[in-house]
Amino acid sequence: MRVYIEDIGKYVGQEITLKGWVYHTRSSGKIKFLVFRDGTGLLQCVLFPGETDRKFLDLFSDLTQETSVIISGVPRVEKRSTGGFELGLKSFEIVHKTLDYPISPKEHGVGFLMEHRHLWIRSKRQHAILRVRASLIKHCRDFFDINGFILCDAPILTPSACEGTTTLFETQYFEEKAYLSQSGQLYNEATARAFGKVYCFGPTFRAEKSKTRKHLTEFWMLEPEVAFASLEDNMELAENFIEYIVQKNLEEKEEEIKSLERDIERLKIIKTPFDRLHYNDAAERLKKSDTGFVYGNDFGAPDESFLCQHYHKPFFVHRFPKKIKAFYMKQDPKDPTLSLSCDLLAPEGYGEIIGGGAREENLEILRKEVERHGLREEDFGWYFDLRKYGSVPTAGFGLGIERALAWICGLPHVRETIPFPRMLERLRP
Amino acid sequence: MRVYIEDIGKYVGQEITLKGWVYHTRSSGKIKFLVFRDGTGLLQCVLFPGETDRKFLDLFSDLTQETSVIISGVPRVEKRSTGGFELGLKSFEIVHKTLDYPISPKEHGVGFLMEHRHLWIRSKRQHAILRVRASLIKHCRDFFDINGFILCDAPILTPSACEGTTTLFETQYFEEKAYLSQSGQLYNEATARAFGKVYCFGPTFRAEKSKTRKHLTEFWMLEPEVAFASLEDNMELAENFIEYIVQKNLEEKEEEIKSLERDIERLKIIKTPFDRLHYNDAAERLKKSDTGFVYGNDFGAPDESFLCQHYHKPFFVHRFPKKIKAFYMKQDPKDPTLSLSCDLLAPEGYGEIIGGGAREENLEILRKEVERHGLREEDFGWYFDLRKYGSVPTAGFGLGIERALAWICGLPHVRETIPFPRMLERLRP
Repeated sequence: MRVYIEDIGKYVGQEITLKGWVYHTRSSGKIKFLVFRDGTGLLQCVLFPGETDRKFLDLFSDLTQETSVIISGVPRVEKRSTGGFELGLKSFEIVHKTLDYPISPKEHGVGFLMEHRHLWIRSKRQHAILRVRASLIKHCRDFFDINGFILCDAPILTPSACEGTTTLFETQYFEEKAYLSQSGQLYNEATARAFGKVYCFGPTFRAEKSKTRKHLTEFWMLEPEVAFASLEDNMELAENFIEYIVQKNLEEKEEEIKSLERDIERLKIIKTPFDRLHYNDAAERLKKSDTGFVYGNDFGAPDESFLCQHYHKPFFVHRFPKKIKAFYMKQDPKDPTLSLSCDLLAPEGYGEIIGGGAREENLEILRKEVERHGLREEDFGWYFDLRKYGSVPTAGFGLGIERALAWICGLPHVRETIPFPRMLERLRP
Repeated sequence: MRVYIEDIGKYVGQEITLKGWVYHTRSSGKIKFLVFRDGTGLLQCVLFPGETDRKFLDLFSDLTQETSVIISGVPRVEKRSTGGFELGLKSFEIVHKTLDYPISPKEHGVGFLMEHRHLWIRSKRQHAILRVRASLIKHCRDFFDINGFILCDAPILTPSACEGTTTLFETQYFEEKAYLSQSGQLYNEATARAFGKVYCFGPTFRAEKSKTRKHLTEFWMLEPEVAFASLEDNMELAENFIEYIVQKNLEEKEEEIKSLERDIERLKIIKTPFDRLHYNDAAERLKKSDTGFVYGNDFGAPDESFLCQHYHKPFFVHRFPKKIKAFYMKQDPKDPTLSLSCDLLAPEGYGEIIGGGAREENLEILRKEVERHGLREEDFGWYFDLRKYGSVPTAGFGLGIERALAWICGLPHVRETIPFPRMLERLRP
């Protein structure tokens, strides 16, 4: 019977078959040890001279790293082993013998590992990160599904820019130009007026020439949008969402997160409410720093780090200057130079993981903003329609999956948070 | 207290507030009727002269179609109403009055509706379809999550073609060319060797100049891949998956599906096993047709329709000729002119909703296939590595969400199955 390692506890004492790969091997006297992986976990297998045919002892040296192999044996409880079981190995059959596997237990440079990403993902650490990623994405979706949001996929191929025109990937779409979506935001505003509460979730693209630990050119973004919601409603939704995904992930993937040497105490405290800091107050604090911050600008990485020092939980900065935000962001009625926007900054220097706010619902103001941002009015006819026909206030935000995952796992760089990262100078494998 | 229509049953007899839009209005003598929508449903509201301030009777004519409005009143049980409740309307406040809403209850041409897709999605039928879509996607993911598959997102920006070079969207990726993914298949083969059982789910792109009822240039595809799986395992996985998603959707979205006038008896019978038809046997049957089918070719729409006649459930055609399949498809050891491939064809003329098969795991054969298909060997170095290091048989398939949804909902065209369809001559809105 073919069994996966994750189910092995059900088969103690029975002879079973497993299919997978050699993780590594060692010998201790006449006893041979095989650490075997099948994608669902690692399993220590022991070959005793008395328990197997002689030929398997002779063939054992063929079990080189990453050789694919079908093994048979009997699982037993063994508290000292990973997972709590080990396999008394009876026989094995090599499927494909691997020679000179390029990734050995010795240290490799990041460039080399990135070139071999298709193989690097088999290693323990990458395995743990990507399992947490899958779980995180599930919990992100679950949160919105449970709360009555309708998933409405936004298109990737779009005729115009959403977040500024300098970071667009362009493609020829038959007779005209199209651009890869930077955000589903504008389309969410249409679907929010149809379904009340919506979210989209898909890859988004920014042709940024940034080589930082926070930038990918292709990243996954989850974006909810709610009709009749205010900036305050939006911050409440965002904090409930973050608490949910962090706590659920911790519940279900504690072992993987711990294996990354993440201090999980720092995650356990991620509970609502999160602090809300007015941009003006943040600016006031930054006066005491030496980051060179100038009032009216967006925060740079040093500014975010300075502000983060005071917090052990994510916190909002709200009401950023209107001029640094996208054209659709609503003006603050109390101060026309500010916007009803909010960013959520993660602690420990991770910085912005969410950006969002209330959208301008007034057609005349919006038209002026489109013009002021140098966008072509003819591209926004359908978007203006949303203000002509039953306009309502809406608010929403976007969560970058990779940045959130880097924070949850405590990773130094987003490049490890996605199976095949796309960055400046990185389109392969 | 602000309430959504979907929760109204909890508030019978209490005064509540709802926020949404006017769906339509009518008068019957002195009594005014408002059908109100908030994205979660429709609600009939009744304004009686004795139960409200005089001014609301006068203002009632301002409630034009799609005017956004906040209403207050008391819900009561009313079996004749949609949803089983109606609202005794007490007062309302107009948020934004809509003039000349372009979509009226009269018939519009499809071209006009597609131009106004951002508004069309507010109508009852589109609303139902897109709610079923959201539910379908959730069940697709659930099936694989429950069965221990790990979600591994494949990249969209890729340096090479996967499914042929004639239907690629190209973009400038800094100093080089990149192409929008046609399938996550090749990347799934890498992640399947890391995680055993994986799936990817995201938008895929084909620059096809086809104007048929089955083609979108941007469509969502769910693709599982399993290490150590055979063609037979793959068909078993696919049929279990289809039964699961159809039955779950029927359970949770029966009302919406019925509202589309779909005969749900045709869906209730979608249970495993599904028939398996060898390509040669299918070809034999087609001899009796007048479709002009030639042995060795792929099926055209008339061939699929002819074959479908015999079936009330989806059925597999397996072992298509090698020459019409992608380079990675494994040769049939019993007949080298055939491949270990399978398509799943939906009944009622819907045709192919799944395509898949076993992948070639032998490096030398694969190299020759890459050459034979005119692909550049240097683009596939990382893919060849999967055969150099611990090669194993893998099999998998792809389900096109939009085609599956068209079948489940009984729709004549895929253009209604996605919020913002992208087709030849359609990049807007």
